[in-house]
Amino acid sequence: MPPFEIRPAIAGDEVHILRLIQALADYEKLSGEVVATEATLRETLFGSKPVAECQLAQTNGKVVGFALYFYNYSTFLAKPGIYLEDLFVEPEYRGQGIGKALIKSVFIKANQEGCGRVEWSVLNWNEPSIEFYKSLGAKPMDEWTVYRLTGDELARYA
Amino acid sequence: MPPFEIRPAIAGDEVHILRLIQALADYEKLSGEVVATEATLRETLFGSKPVAECQLAQTNGKVVGFALYFYNYSTFLAKPGIYLEDLFVEPEYRGQGIGKALIKSVFIKANQEGCGRVEWSVLNWNEPSIEFYKSLGAKPMDEWTVYRLTGDELARYA
Repeated sequence: MPPFEIRPAIAGDEVHILRLIQALADYEKLSGEVVATEATLRETLFGSKPVAECQLAQTNGKVVGFALYFYNYSTFLAKPGIYLEDLFVEPEYRGQGIGKALIKSVFIKANQEGCGRVEWSVLNWNEPSIEFYKSLGAKPMDEWTVYRLTGDELARYA
Repeated sequence: MPPFEIRPAIAGDEVHILRLIQALADYEKLSGEVVATEATLRETLFGSKPVAECQLAQTNGKVVGFALYFYNYSTFLAKPGIYLEDLFVEPEYRGQGIGKALIKSVFIKANQEGCGRVEWSVLNWNEPSIEFYKSLGAKPMDEWTVYRLTGDELARYA
């Protein structure tokens, strides 16, 4: 197997990131929900006020995986944390440790930045991912449920 | 009942915010997890690089509730969102619409900032809150579970 490298995403990588977001959405059976474009990714990730950061996995010059995260906050700790929004490796590049290297790069970043915790969400049917995350030491917060207000339901509070 | 007002928190409010965080933790039966102090709240909320924002509810000069939130990010939307970390009103001031006014102030902010969604977490046993959130139009993301890596488990990736 060819070696791979993990590197921070920079402006111009939005083409790769969009392709991987779409592949992730397909995997999650949520592809109808992707409205991101290269332009909106460029603006939000690499514009004047970036709202998230991204690590890419590259092998033989091809970007094959990404970890996209932003900083959150714990009031109990009064400390920032990291929320890992997306972690994805293209199916044909799995089994080489690329996903593990990507998520570890986020854990290292969290330690460097003095973060109290790293969190992410997993679809309950995604058993392979759940086993992988548990093997890294992560614990399910299964006494909690996330609630979401979006679309027209949010807009009526404008 | 006395009238109340909703206002943004400013430096100096950390004393009120810490009191409310502790009261919230007591309510959630998680009081042992609070290590925040006035100093760490001041630094993270009102220092050179604030990581979260806070709205306070005040009645007769007394701060009786808070909504603390930060910005997150949806890759599918390529848009920021708001994550409401804490919403709390002191028990003796409930039933006056203070909680609703606080969370609505966050929904209004989300619309002003062009956010695609507002999300927050609820303990599964907290039926009164769940009914309240559903009445606002929020939907449970119950096909997902949050995983967390924290403490020593996170530190070993330093």
